Amino acid sequence: MSIVVYLGDAQETREWVDLLSGLLPEFEVRDFDDPGNMDAVEYAVVWAPPAGRIAQFPNLKAVVSIGAGVDHVLRDPQLPRHLPILRTTGPDMVQRLREYVSLHVLTHHRDLAITDANQAQAIWQQIVTPVAQKRRVGIMGLGNIARACAQTLASLGFDTAGWSRSGGEVEGVAVFSGTDGLPDFLARTDILVCLLPLTPQTRDILNADLFARLPRGARLINAARGGHLVEADFLEALESGQLGGATLDVFWTEPLPADHPFWRHPKIRVTPHIASMIDAETGASVIATNIRAFAATGTSEAIADANRGY
Amino acid sequence: MSIVVYLGDAQETREWVDLLSGLLPEFEVRDFDDPGNMDAVEYAVVWAPPAGRIAQFPNLKAVVSIGAGVDHVLRDPQLPRHLPILRTTGPDMVQRLREYVSLHVLTHHRDLAITDANQAQAIWQQIVTPVAQKRRVGIMGLGNIARACAQTLASLGFDTAGWSRSGGEVEGVAVFSGTDGLPDFLARTDILVCLLPLTPQTRDILNADLFARLPRGARLINAARGGHLVEADFLEALESGQLGGATLDVFWTEPLPADHPFWRHPKIRVTPHIASMIDAETGASVIATNIRAFAATGTSEAIADANRGY
Repeated sequence: MSIVVYLGDAQETREWVDLLSGLLPEFEVRDFDDPGNMDAVEYAVVWAPPAGRIAQFPNLKAVVSIGAGVDHVLRDPQLPRHLPILRTTGPDMVQRLREYVSLHVLTHHRDLAITDANQAQAIWQQIVTPVAQKRRVGIMGLGNIARACAQTLASLGFDTAGWSRSGGEVEGVAVFSGTDGLPDFLARTDILVCLLPLTPQTRDILNADLFARLPRGARLINAARGGHLVEADFLEALESGQLGGATLDVFWTEPLPADHPFWRHPKIRVTPHIASMIDAETGASVIATNIRAFAATGTSEAIADANRGY
Repeated sequence: MSIVVYLGDAQETREWVDLLSGLLPEFEVRDFDDPGNMDAVEYAVVWAPPAGRIAQFPNLKAVVSIGAGVDHVLRDPQLPRHLPILRTTGPDMVQRLREYVSLHVLTHHRDLAITDANQAQAIWQQIVTPVAQKRRVGIMGLGNIARACAQTLASLGFDTAGWSRSGGEVEGVAVFSGTDGLPDFLARTDILVCLLPLTPQTRDILNADLFARLPRGARLINAARGGHLVEADFLEALESGQLGGATLDVFWTEPLPADHPFWRHPKIRVTPHIASMIDAETGASVIATNIRAFAATGTSEAIADANRGY
């Protein structure tokens, strides 16, 4: 019985192999690119594996996504569709995303970019921003992570709403749902935070039509996936002033190429996909628990719903 | 019966005069520098008034500080000591400081300065920071504003402690007190937030001895008063690496002079005394309520304790 691990980076992969070996001594844990006996491989623990490679393990029981989203697994056209995909989440990931969303909503709310630009020129300019109760934040997505972020923002004082396809109830947060609910949600949102899973329905959702429905000068934070954003529409909305600024953690191509215009755009803050970066120790521990439970019972609460994308 | 207003800036003063005139029609409200009949002046609403000037109003009933601290009034050596000083606080000020402290603790916690510096060079470097539960934040001060900030940080997940001279209980926050409690408080603090009132006891408290008791590389946020900080000790602690970075909102001289070294220091973020900037409308409304209550009863919950400094 063996487990193979793929992270793209050889050194990172080695670190995860070592950690999982220690946590799951009943398995042989190997590098995906050096799997040994292919027939013995039961689990593939992966981030963005190359297309066609998962299908080469004939006795795989499950794919384990190193992340809460599973789009990076599902994009493989040769992925055997019967395979369950275990997603990786847990308190640490939720916590990290709460921190990231709070930090970046606050940077926009308090106009940190203006204060920083003034500092560079030794300009003392006191800006009075509205209190959070008068700032309307809108979260797209209402999965467990997004709900925790929405409640954190509400507890910081923000006038917080959430939107998802199917809606739901979140204490202290106004919930909008479905295609019908989207325009009203956008019209009341000064700072928009995208935490949606990437699915065929949500791909390209951050487009010119959506930006046009926001109040002029609204801010955008994308901590979901690069595939949600139509880059040309986005740059045009910044240019016209319809969007007043943005913080992006995710991109169509990662790492973001050095010559990409986002890096040097004065209204864009770029962060390198770290919103809820899983540290190897915590992540390996969650994954070891999930694999062991799945191996024992044949099922798991961590199994993703491919239609929802998480 | 009249009220005089002093803010240092003529245009700002005029704005406050107009607002208070509308809110307190039973008073004549005038510019401090054009008071009319000095004998008629009953209240002086001030931020950092010039020394000796308050004493020139013979029938003053109270001084009103445009701010939660009263150090900027007490520093006048000719201030008549019998005069009550009404401080200005309220939900908006508490809210603004909760936002400021959350934002700047999070910038240090998530190493935003590194991410920003990387962006300027188009460098994709993923940093894994510990979760907030593993980051120890320490708040100096346990007045109503500091308590609210401490609880907000605790709710964001930080391992939060507070310190003050007299201590007290704050739910979810470890409390240290007095001179004896300070070393232990500092030894467990990765991010130190100063929210103390400025008094003879707290002046210069942020000095070389205090910095030496923090873990190496600790961060400092000062949103209290410039007088708390010994600037030479602070620059030396940054230079040696004992302090890893700082965010300063307050300074010995405000506005911070354009040639001051803080503006261009790579480890210092400067903000222009905006942590809990009072907007004129909200501030004037709180002050009008306080003056009217004091005029009716001869006392007020807003009267500052000169020994505590707030």
